[in-house]
Amino acid sequence: MSDLKKERNAFFDELVENGLFIPTGVAGFYGRGGAFEDVVRQFGLLVGQYSESDGAERIFFPPLVQKTTLERAGYMETMPHLCGVVHSFSGDEGEHKKLLSAIKEGEDWSGFLEATDLALTPAACYPLYPTASGTLKEGGRLVDLDAGYVFRREPSEDPARLQMFRQREMVRMGPPELVQEWRGVWMERGESVLRSLGLDVVVEVASDPFFGRGGRMLSASQKQQELKFEMQVPIVSREHPTAVTSFNYHTSHFGETFGILSNDGEYAHTACLGFGVERIALALFRRHGMQPTRWPSSVRTLLWP
Amino acid sequence: MSDLKKERNAFFDELVENGLFIPTGVAGFYGRGGAFEDVVRQFGLLVGQYSESDGAERIFFPPLVQKTTLERAGYMETMPHLCGVVHSFSGDEGEHKKLLSAIKEGEDWSGFLEATDLALTPAACYPLYPTASGTLKEGGRLVDLDAGYVFRREPSEDPARLQMFRQREMVRMGPPELVQEWRGVWMERGESVLRSLGLDVVVEVASDPFFGRGGRMLSASQKQQELKFEMQVPIVSREHPTAVTSFNYHTSHFGETFGILSNDGEYAHTACLGFGVERIALALFRRHGMQPTRWPSSVRTLLWP
Repeated sequence: MSDLKKERNAFFDELVENGLFIPTGVAGFYGRGGAFEDVVRQFGLLVGQYSESDGAERIFFPPLVQKTTLERAGYMETMPHLCGVVHSFSGDEGEHKKLLSAIKEGEDWSGFLEATDLALTPAACYPLYPTASGTLKEGGRLVDLDAGYVFRREPSEDPARLQMFRQREMVRMGPPELVQEWRGVWMERGESVLRSLGLDVVVEVASDPFFGRGGRMLSASQKQQELKFEMQVPIVSREHPTAVTSFNYHTSHFGETFGILSNDGEYAHTACLGFGVERIALALFRRHGMQPTRWPSSVRTLLWP
Repeated sequence: MSDLKKERNAFFDELVENGLFIPTGVAGFYGRGGAFEDVVRQFGLLVGQYSESDGAERIFFPPLVQKTTLERAGYMETMPHLCGVVHSFSGDEGEHKKLLSAIKEGEDWSGFLEATDLALTPAACYPLYPTASGTLKEGGRLVDLDAGYVFRREPSEDPARLQMFRQREMVRMGPPELVQEWRGVWMERGESVLRSLGLDVVVEVASDPFFGRGGRMLSASQKQQELKFEMQVPIVSREHPTAVTSFNYHTSHFGETFGILSNDGEYAHTACLGFGVERIALALFRRHGMQPTRWPSSVRTLLWP
């Protein structure tokens, strides 16, 4: 076993022993203990102070998205391998008997289900865009989506790679210069917040994990245009830090797709930022130890003011 | 249109006009505005005081459950019509091309997806039971699962019937007498909390919406044994109040299914209670008006102490 894998496993075991993660038998799907959730919640309050002082609207979605939104936004084109579509049973009693007999025989029973009009959302902001169609008021919009759950189908033994996790996400929509300015402000704030919590931050131009050969070209273009930045901090390993925050500039992609216009009549530009709150909590437990009561007072004062 | 439907629609419109619900085009899937979320959060804190003073463990799951848990617990037998199974894409680039072409042609593309090992959880407590297998310590266990999202496939125009909503759920496991006693204590507390918020409460022996003809027999037996109680309060209509809280005694069902034993070696009994927090928030907005700042001071003092 590689050293990295050994470190991963040891860290996972430590999380479990301290009641921070509760294994379920499925890789990337764990319960969280109370002390873990407290850190998640307090980090959210810390970040929320900024969006409150920016006068952000607050809108929250359950972790769903219309399947048509994923289709329209091109998600099935670029990241089909991460999607989770909700299938359900709408058969009659005869079908139900066959379904139960398939379960009893240990057979695949997915054929008795049908796709619904819903998927699990892969980013907290997706359900927002179609609700924003129309013309924005002057200055555009700023929305704080709080910590929404998102789903990405990538089972992994890495405790920092979860199938369902929360993104503290914010979205800015409006004319390009306002959107870019907002992203710039938050990149400074984000780095400063993470550093103030004692985390070593590396800022990188990044790309999304697009699918297939076409995806590699998309990634190269995304990097070249500097559309995505990530902040990475050590979780499992110092040498291979993990992305905990991303800052994404979509240019007019969502504006054109969902008919969102700035008040000058041009397609609105959009940007979003997402703090991966479970990863940030993991980084803090890794850096400062498994007992938050023993974390440095500078960190505790920020999180529990 | 019936009077009840007219009332439903008028209430929904009022929620939308006041920014409390944000429509998405899918029945039962809405965004929630900040003022709505504040009520949800503060109600959670109010109820959490009791479980904290009871010394409950705190465990939180993302809104998933292992598909095998639904199979083992008999969910596909009793409530298959409400399930949501997660399907994903694991094809190669050739399959992906066909998937995209199906989307382009407006065809059903569900055939390109496969069932995963995960479903959306229909109750916050399901993921907990398999993690509890083994012998409990003396006195059993009490777990506060906080406000977990749950999914039920029942699209509806009723603003109080959501496809994904949160349950403030607690679970008691142990010898029958302790479990029944706990349920009794919480039934009194639950009624008193709801009444203190100005809601008119009706307590009813209830049953789950089991599937098919066999389901009707199950429901009758569940009622006859008084395994489920619901508290109903007016939301859309005073004449037809809506269940906002349920108290469920499972006898040894989960204990036997998941091998959970009391320290006397007998199968543990379990009970759970769930506050439907969105419904409780809706009942409060319906009762006291769309502006929480204008709610009666007795209610405000409880929610914002």
